Amino acid sequence: MRTFFNVEDIGDLNKALSEAKEVKANRFGFQGLGKNKTLLMIFFNNSLRTRLSTQKAAMNLGMNVIVLDVNAGAWKLETERGVIMDGDKSEHLLEAIPVMGCYCDVIGVRSFAGLSDREYDYAETIVNQFVKYSGRPVFAMETATVHPLQAFADLITIEEHKKNSRPKVVLTWAPHCRALPQAVPNSFAQWMNAADVDFVITQPHGYELDPKFVGSARVEYDQKKALEGADFVYAKNWSCPGVENASDYGKILSKDMSWTIDAEHMSWTNDGYFMHCLPVRRGLIVTDDVIESDHSLVIPEAANREISAEVVIKRILESL
Amino acid sequence: MRTFFNVEDIGDLNKALSEAKEVKANRFGFQGLGKNKTLLMIFFNNSLRTRLSTQKAAMNLGMNVIVLDVNAGAWKLETERGVIMDGDKSEHLLEAIPVMGCYCDVIGVRSFAGLSDREYDYAETIVNQFVKYSGRPVFAMETATVHPLQAFADLITIEEHKKNSRPKVVLTWAPHCRALPQAVPNSFAQWMNAADVDFVITQPHGYELDPKFVGSARVEYDQKKALEGADFVYAKNWSCPGVENASDYGKILSKDMSWTIDAEHMSWTNDGYFMHCLPVRRGLIVTDDVIESDHSLVIPEAANREISAEVVIKRILESL
Amino acid sequence: MRTFFNVEDIGDLNKALSEAKEVKANRFGFQGLGKNKTLLMIFFNNSLRTRLSTQKAAMNLGMNVIVLDVNAGAWKLETERGVIMDGDKSEHLLEAIPVMGCYCDVIGVRSFAGLSDREYDYAETIVNQFVKYSGRPVFAMETATVHPLQAFADLITIEEHKKNSRPKVVLTWAPHCRALPQAVPNSFAQWMNAADVDFVITQPHGYELDPKFVGSARVEYDQKKALEGADFVYAKNWSCPGVENASDYGKILSKDMSWTIDAEHMSWTNDGYFMHCLPVRRGLIVTDDVIESDHSLVIPEAANREISAEVVIKRILESL
Repeated sequence: MRTFFNVEDIGDLNKALSEAKEVKANRFGFQGLGKNKTLLMIFFNNSLRTRLSTQKAAMNLGMNVIVLDVNAGAWKLETERGVIMDGDKSEHLLEAIPVMGCYCDVIGVRSFAGLSDREYDYAETIVNQFVKYSGRPVFAMETATVHPLQAFADLITIEEHKKNSRPKVVLTWAPHCRALPQAVPNSFAQWMNAADVDFVITQPHGYELDPKFVGSARVEYDQKKALEGADFVYAKNWSCPGVENASDYGKILSKDMSWTIDAEHMSWTNDGYFMHCLPVRRGLIVTDDVIESDHSLVIPEAANREISAEVVIKRILESL
Repeated sequence: MRTFFNVEDIGDLNKALSEAKEVKANRFGFQGLGKNKTLLMIFFNNSLRTRLSTQKAAMNLGMNVIVLDVNAGAWKLETERGVIMDGDKSEHLLEAIPVMGCYCDVIGVRSFAGLSDREYDYAETIVNQFVKYSGRPVFAMETATVHPLQAFADLITIEEHKKNSRPKVVLTWAPHCRALPQAVPNSFAQWMNAADVDFVITQPHGYELDPKFVGSARVEYDQKKALEGADFVYAKNWSCPGVENASDYGKILSKDMSWTIDAEHMSWTNDGYFMHCLPVRRGLIVTDDVIESDHSLVIPEAANREISAEVVIKRILESL
Repeated sequence: MRTFFNVEDIGDLNKALSEAKEVKANRFGFQGLGKNKTLLMIFFNNSLRTRLSTQKAAMNLGMNVIVLDVNAGAWKLETERGVIMDGDKSEHLLEAIPVMGCYCDVIGVRSFAGLSDREYDYAETIVNQFVKYSGRPVFAMETATVHPLQAFADLITIEEHKKNSRPKVVLTWAPHCRALPQAVPNSFAQWMNAADVDFVITQPHGYELDPKFVGSARVEYDQKKALEGADFVYAKNWSCPGVENASDYGKILSKDMSWTIDAEHMSWTNDGYFMHCLPVRRGLIVTDDVIESDHSLVIPEAANREISAEVVIKRILESL
């Protein structure tokens, strides 16, 4: 595996899930693979779960880890050719990226959507330059449009908790006070479409995800109808993906608190589990009683981030 | 050992001191304990000695170490239930802490006193949440009211330099230009009360430490009388502990420079040693000639921070 | 080797080059040397290449690495004796440096020139205090006046690419929009003078490097004449070294764009290679086509930073 951005990169999902199970049972069992191999984790944005879980996964595999925090403001990269670089950008990406590739074997990159230029974000401009110029395998630690380590961890968690062979999984929009990227719902939708689940997306009008991520999912604008009989409720806020109207990209179109997941919402489900990738705003996305209930999977999902990262890095190491 | 905050946590002090001696002589001799174990060091405040010495100690033991710098301003945690989180706090501690516990085996936390709310600080609100919700052993890297790794290192240093079996140890307040927490004097007092020393505390009126830390110590308001015959002079500034008047908590009540430790002060002692936890303000706490003299133990104390940390982490690893 | 600042510290250059070759072919072959040894990397200034390559080199050697980012603004060190420290400096270097030495075996320091006080910079005031007070071997990760890990990496790169036994190497000044230190050209000149090359320095009047670095080099103010027949063109900007007029120290005396290395400049050479230490401002120092050509060595130079660092740290470890 040379890159990890989309569900196709991991290949057969059942195989990936059984490998995750094997890794979880024996997380220090593959240290030969990582010996004298270095992971470079590059953060253009803040991180708690991703930083800790990915570093832990790489150390489980016996790797050395270097963490580089790039303050996006301080370390500006020039991206155009033919420019006289006499402004605030002190290095060109055409030098910076191959240099970073010199000192490591595998690169993980976190670079969020700017939410101002839909075309730039959805072209994955930053991360694709790492793929093209670093000379190293590159995996996403959340990019402008995808967060596959999260989606894989979510799939592992669903597999561990499902009570029937083809559970109903509902991705539901929920309100938030800030404009958030679509990376988490995009990847969750992509992975659920590829998994053996009955997948439904529900959101207010205007919040439609990009068709390439919606794929074959059923879309239901009535949240109650969507949640009926759900085995897993995956709540998440996202800002307008700008599918119908590109000028609305990144905007907050609704703060409708009737979408907040509370006990009544959960009562419509099939004794369903609550899921969220964290960090979560209580009172907006979900109520205290739901997230604290024994049907909340937020901590198991977070714990499985170590496992999804370990499987992905293991696969990359095996292909070196 | 599941927590390390107070002197009771370490048990018998003579046993702890002989274990420190053993560790110091053979600091790489216990690496089997730390293999595939991860220490997460969480800093809500800056650190030089604690960061370096604790990281070194954990690496001595063969552990992996992850350092997380939490900018208290940027990463605000909601602590109340029932709140709609639509302000500047993006994550609830009830999620953040168990998540951090997922990716490590042992947690060290640094979280200083705010010095504005005595009850909040002395209840150890932040650190106790880590104990309650992380699911991991937690040790103090200086909390609101205690700094036991420092006190243990100080005790080791006294043990190494004492010239009689029951030395006189004097904790003396000294002036400073900023309001400082009481964590260091609190822990020093607690540990000296438990050790086999003749322990005296001296400070201006109004600077009385909390009775639970003063314990059985003799308190002497006349600094000269206190220092007479001292084998060890432990100087430290602290702000008002607010024992008599809670509204004075965290205030600077005196900058009396007659309390600064100079050669004359040292002449009153029994050819005593000068001690301080560092960082120290020269000219306020102590004069250049005293801190640079061959009776200054400030560097040996700092060096023993590696040893106290190693003993504590070793004990925790043994109990996993 | 106890210090690494100047070319003399590495001893015989041919021996150093053959050791570099050996290390490059077998970079994980010396891990016994680093076992249970700790490198402390102290950054007073930002770093990309130096941070990553030095950390990688130390890990290649089996060392533990602790990285300490000192925000020069936040963590001010008092340097004078006899001062009452009641200002913004909370620790004296006479304590801070020996304390840092307590927790490691080897220290690397990055501390750039301030460019305001020539005497202070050229006396290497900061770094010399680490040498004097840390009790540990200290090596430069770019100091006020030297950057020997870069110069050594450049020499390795020249050795790998030279097409005749005594190549002509030209260090040429080039324009820049900001005032930069002289550390890179100083060290490059020092190393080239010691190497078996035909070495020429070219720069506008007023940009003469300090005589102790110019050494026996030929100085040529006509850039075209200097570049004629060059096998290697080493471009770099530097601010006024203040040799003739100390009051000009650190100033930008020229932004003459005729010094920018473009295809015409390269046509004057002996089919020469282009070199630069990075980061580089395209359009000021060099044009896109030259830096992207197959005669550009900027990425191999950067890759050799891992090798120069590994040789240096290896030598230091061997002398412990």
